[in-house]
Amino acid sequence: MPAAGALPANIHCAHDYEDLARQALEPAVFAHLAGGAGRDVAVRNNRAAFEALKITPRVLRDLKAGSTRLSLGGEARPHPIWLGPVAFQALFHAGAEVETARAAAAVGAGLVASTLSSVTLEEIAAAAGPDRWFQLYVQPAREATLDLVRRAEAAGYRALVVTVDAPVHAPGLTSLRAGFRGGQASANLAGWTAPEAAPAPGESRVFQGLMPAAPTWADIDWLRAQTALPLWLKGVMHPDDARAALAAGVDGLVVSNHGGRELDSAPSSLSALPPVRAAVGESFPLLFDGGIRCGEDVFKAIALGADGVMLGRLQAWALAAAGALGVGHMIKLLREELEVCMALAGCVDLADIRRAEVRAETWAGKEGPC
Amino acid sequence: MPAAGALPANIHCAHDYEDLARQALEPAVFAHLAGGAGRDVAVRNNRAAFEALKITPRVLRDLKAGSTRLSLGGEARPHPIWLGPVAFQALFHAGAEVETARAAAAVGAGLVASTLSSVTLEEIAAAAGPDRWFQLYVQPAREATLDLVRRAEAAGYRALVVTVDAPVHAPGLTSLRAGFRGGQASANLAGWTAPEAAPAPGESRVFQGLMPAAPTWADIDWLRAQTALPLWLKGVMHPDDARAALAAGVDGLVVSNHGGRELDSAPSSLSALPPVRAAVGESFPLLFDGGIRCGEDVFKAIALGADGVMLGRLQAWALAAAGALGVGHMIKLLREELEVCMALAGCVDLADIRRAEVRAETWAGKEGPC
Amino acid sequence: MPAAGALPANIHCAHDYEDLARQALEPAVFAHLAGGAGRDVAVRNNRAAFEALKITPRVLRDLKAGSTRLSLGGEARPHPIWLGPVAFQALFHAGAEVETARAAAAVGAGLVASTLSSVTLEEIAAAAGPDRWFQLYVQPAREATLDLVRRAEAAGYRALVVTVDAPVHAPGLTSLRAGFRGGQASANLAGWTAPEAAPAPGESRVFQGLMPAAPTWADIDWLRAQTALPLWLKGVMHPDDARAALAAGVDGLVVSNHGGRELDSAPSSLSALPPVRAAVGESFPLLFDGGIRCGEDVFKAIALGADGVMLGRLQAWALAAAGALGVGHMIKLLREELEVCMALAGCVDLADIRRAEVRAETWAGKEGPC
Amino acid sequence: MPAAGALPANIHCAHDYEDLARQALEPAVFAHLAGGAGRDVAVRNNRAAFEALKITPRVLRDLKAGSTRLSLGGEARPHPIWLGPVAFQALFHAGAEVETARAAAAVGAGLVASTLSSVTLEEIAAAAGPDRWFQLYVQPAREATLDLVRRAEAAGYRALVVTVDAPVHAPGLTSLRAGFRGGQASANLAGWTAPEAAPAPGESRVFQGLMPAAPTWADIDWLRAQTALPLWLKGVMHPDDARAALAAGVDGLVVSNHGGRELDSAPSSLSALPPVRAAVGESFPLLFDGGIRCGEDVFKAIALGADGVMLGRLQAWALAAAGALGVGHMIKLLREELEVCMALAGCVDLADIRRAEVRAETWAGKEGPC
Repeated sequence: MPAAGALPANIHCAHDYEDLARQALEPAVFAHLAGGAGRDVAVRNNRAAFEALKITPRVLRDLKAGSTRLSLGGEARPHPIWLGPVAFQALFHAGAEVETARAAAAVGAGLVASTLSSVTLEEIAAAAGPDRWFQLYVQPAREATLDLVRRAEAAGYRALVVTVDAPVHAPGLTSLRAGFRGGQASANLAGWTAPEAAPAPGESRVFQGLMPAAPTWADIDWLRAQTALPLWLKGVMHPDDARAALAAGVDGLVVSNHGGRELDSAPSSLSALPPVRAAVGESFPLLFDGGIRCGEDVFKAIALGADGVMLGRLQAWALAAAGALGVGHMIKLLREELEVCMALAGCVDLADIRRAEVRAETWAGKEGPC
Repeated sequence: MPAAGALPANIHCAHDYEDLARQALEPAVFAHLAGGAGRDVAVRNNRAAFEALKITPRVLRDLKAGSTRLSLGGEARPHPIWLGPVAFQALFHAGAEVETARAAAAVGAGLVASTLSSVTLEEIAAAAGPDRWFQLYVQPAREATLDLVRRAEAAGYRALVVTVDAPVHAPGLTSLRAGFRGGQASANLAGWTAPEAAPAPGESRVFQGLMPAAPTWADIDWLRAQTALPLWLKGVMHPDDARAALAAGVDGLVVSNHGGRELDSAPSSLSALPPVRAAVGESFPLLFDGGIRCGEDVFKAIALGADGVMLGRLQAWALAAAGALGVGHMIKLLREELEVCMALAGCVDLADIRRAEVRAETWAGKEGPC
Repeated sequence: MPAAGALPANIHCAHDYEDLARQALEPAVFAHLAGGAGRDVAVRNNRAAFEALKITPRVLRDLKAGSTRLSLGGEARPHPIWLGPVAFQALFHAGAEVETARAAAAVGAGLVASTLSSVTLEEIAAAAGPDRWFQLYVQPAREATLDLVRRAEAAGYRALVVTVDAPVHAPGLTSLRAGFRGGQASANLAGWTAPEAAPAPGESRVFQGLMPAAPTWADIDWLRAQTALPLWLKGVMHPDDARAALAAGVDGLVVSNHGGRELDSAPSSLSALPPVRAAVGESFPLLFDGGIRCGEDVFKAIALGADGVMLGRLQAWALAAAGALGVGHMIKLLREELEVCMALAGCVDLADIRRAEVRAETWAGKEGPC
Repeated sequence: MPAAGALPANIHCAHDYEDLARQALEPAVFAHLAGGAGRDVAVRNNRAAFEALKITPRVLRDLKAGSTRLSLGGEARPHPIWLGPVAFQALFHAGAEVETARAAAAVGAGLVASTLSSVTLEEIAAAAGPDRWFQLYVQPAREATLDLVRRAEAAGYRALVVTVDAPVHAPGLTSLRAGFRGGQASANLAGWTAPEAAPAPGESRVFQGLMPAAPTWADIDWLRAQTALPLWLKGVMHPDDARAALAAGVDGLVVSNHGGRELDSAPSSLSALPPVRAAVGESFPLLFDGGIRCGEDVFKAIALGADGVMLGRLQAWALAAAGALGVGHMIKLLREELEVCMALAGCVDLADIRRAEVRAETWAGKEGPC
């Protein structure tokens, strides 16, 4: 474990860190983290999709050689759990992203550092293990975007993950009502300022004010030409967009509805996995983000087409409760929950999970003449 | 903005005006507005239909030229939001319909003035912009109906909207139990009285007492012949009635279950949109009314076939909370919520919304041999 | 109105009598009436079926000649509402079945007097109008059954309604837990006692103890031969049983799950209507019992195949609250609620209701390329 | 009845013993018994499956010869109720499994003694009737397993029931949070200790630590060759596993998700019955376990393919409340509840139940032109 200190008591599973975080955080920060877009319908719906799906147990298989290992994009990994990009982690712990990076290295989890981090990407890299990716928000000015790319390359990040599902940030009512104050500054963007375009009279603040700064497929084409790093898109939910991404030469996709934080009427992330997997083919690298709380959830996401999963809120809760020690512990718990689920479902490896029976329980019943 | 005064604090979205209205109104009036027919099943069901539908996000489209503009019946409009007919607005604000009319003009919303208004249609017209329609309740005496039509023509109303779904007014239990006292008088109908027909012994108060005064298709034919104004019917839910309206030479339809205030077992207004749109064809003018609370709702109604939406309770809540200023503010918020939703769903205009993927999330799951 | 006294205040609809009855009755009696078999699942399910169904409004039809009249088995009736057999009405009002009978006569409702009545069938007949039927529980001894039949014939009852769904009375937990004390004696059966058969060791109290006294198809054949009165069966839920009843020469059926008081896992009464109607053909006399609370419910039952409906709990609540006056008032309210619903659904008569669109609202949504 | 003492008052049905047990047990023990794996989703889902299914009543059949008798594997039984294996019954009553065994003998219920019992299998056998089976947990060492088999044979157990669904015991949060302390020792395994294998660095505690001790199909083949006793597998949920069991020469199967105590996302036990029955054919011995609370539940399980049912929590609740007397009384109540349900559904025997109409209520409704 990378950090001094003791593990919290009474943690029986990875999700138990939520309760500790509730105690550790200011209510406004906890509410901001918990809430999503609008009235949190998408947040709840992400969970409902997991709860609706059942895993059929299988028995008496020989699982002595079982493992959660995977190989993705040519790199071997001990388990399919990533720490997804979570913005401004100083909100949750004084050590911010440095703590998270140390935990990721300690437990073999992939780290995805956010553009919107409380410390610089170089500081994160210094604390992280070699398995680190950089999440990129395309900036209004291409030179700003390119600066981030070059710095990420220089700091040894192994892939770029472009978030494409947040052209505008819709305010979440839970966060607003709790009095959360935004305005956190990204350490990576110090020196770059991009004032919102001023729409002319009769123009729209959204379309003519904000959309000129939002990334388009043309930006992806441009970015593809700027770097040799593997390029991922995060936030794809529709199979047609997945196909377009493949055509654009992207190396991997993250199916995500941004944790329910963008479009309150969005379908669950989980429901988008099967059609996106079908669109990209069986072997294309595909990660999942949105609603993971326990090992059975990881199992379900993999069964429905993901190669691995990213954690958002789970990560922030553990960070808030116990820093690097908490994040590392949470991942170990989650991985073991996944292993137990695999054992009960008779799956010796992740490929077995992909073939497992995972579906909603439906009852049509039977008729008969009695 | 047309009115002096300050905007209320803590309004984060259009729907937030409901809470302010609850504080501003007498409980009996608030309950009367909130309630519907019977036990409010239809009111709740109108909302459930919206909540069941999901909008699939789309990414990386170029939306710089985005707009909510539309053209309907040959008239260009900046956005698809109408202020629907709401009766007796003096219940909600001392300025009554005059406030509403000024707000509509200020924010480019279509105004539909009710026959049952607290001030006369001429007073409303004086405060309104040019985009004003008149909602017509067919009166028991044809001369009374014709008088309303001629006055509306003279006052510059550009269309007649005949409400056809309220041949009887079924009492709502929420309103009755809250002690709401009806009996408000229409300023437009001063001088006209139409006592209920007295059914003979063995006859029905409903069928022989009230139905002789209720409009029929013959009244629509008669009305069509009396005026050159565009003629709309409001309250159509069945595709066969929509086809009959087309055959009768009607210029537009409003799909509506009267905000759940007539038949407590009515299907949701939203569920009636696709079959009615299919019945009338892609280009026939079709508006929607019933349950709109936020911009994502407007998006869904348009996706399912509406050209635009009418607001009822949202309008009354904003009026109660802050008069013309509130109504105008509410519409600006709602329009921007629609624009954000369009940006997240990758829709550059309303025609794009019509093609968007909007459907209930269903989980059949997958099976496999594992 | 047949009784002195004033109508209760604050009754806005037929179902409002439930609240008054709660105040008027001992809690144990109210609970006994409210509860069903087992854990009241069937009671709630009877209601859920009504709530799931929606009625599509229709507009602009000419309904001046509207009416709730029907003709059933050759007899004309003003409306399709019956007072079903409710046992031991002295539990609810000192006047017992005499009050109910007077109300039925006053408002033109069909009366079905129970074998298990607090006063004799002759006393009921003396208070009732000519439209009276007798509900028959087949007795262990055929001479007892025949005695009831002959007395019913002599007292001018016009039909026999044999209850066939209660071969055993399963105790309801709601009633038992509320401390309801059974053991009420039927005024009609004074002098007849039928001790339960004593099962031999190893035999079953249910099968060998009670079933020898339960009616079978052979008893129906026997009964058919004993009387010229129209013979109805009450409690048929399966289409095969409906067909068997037709083959046995029965004159009418009541689809019913005994108000949810027999089998807690029974399907809703309403769900059984369409298959039973399909089995017996369009013109066979078919009544419905189970969960009616308002006029829209009556509409739904008729739309799904019933010729009319029987009231159980509504009847007892009104009786408890206000005797004959309450029962009559409740029926008048219910009938007018039905008429309003017909007006809003564009139905001029009961045959129109049978053709109306009544179905659960389902949302499959739409897909599109946007 | 085998035990002194009085029956508890206020027991109206078998399930009422739960409330008495809540009073009788330490909260931590009650919570441990009530809870399942993870967050008790599977426990609740087992119940939801029963509640979703409806039984169509049938009428007027001759049931005087009715009976709950069955013949299974060549042995005649008075009713289809088994006392399933429940571990460490000293937690619930000082008399532990001896009380349960006496009750089983008194009321003709099949007894399945657990490997994990508080008293030895020989002590249980001494108290039990001849209808006793032994539940076998395959031990890490084959000599330990064989020792259990030989002792069970010597003690007159008539079948072995190998539990195959618990290769690891996932901790249930309800139990953990209530502070339940595990570590109860099996009286049968005194002298045998099997320390968990120590996984090497980089290995998994689950796969390399626990799975080497978990049974596989090879163990079933070995076991089949060691004993002439009928061999059952308990915990089969997938039809492919059922087919594999048949191929391995197994004599019977118990469809079970271990009362929801293993995989929190498991489908309900009930939902697995139809596919497993279809896989093994109509006459193969098949029992059911998971969620039985009342006689209608027993009926449903048999209708969906079971030959009989095992009780877990019901057994422990009755034991906790009133020892052998309680367990015997509970079974008598449950059997009579089954008989009443059979009478109301018109079923004269268990074969009739298999043909009964049992299905979820669904409402598609009807459409019409009105």
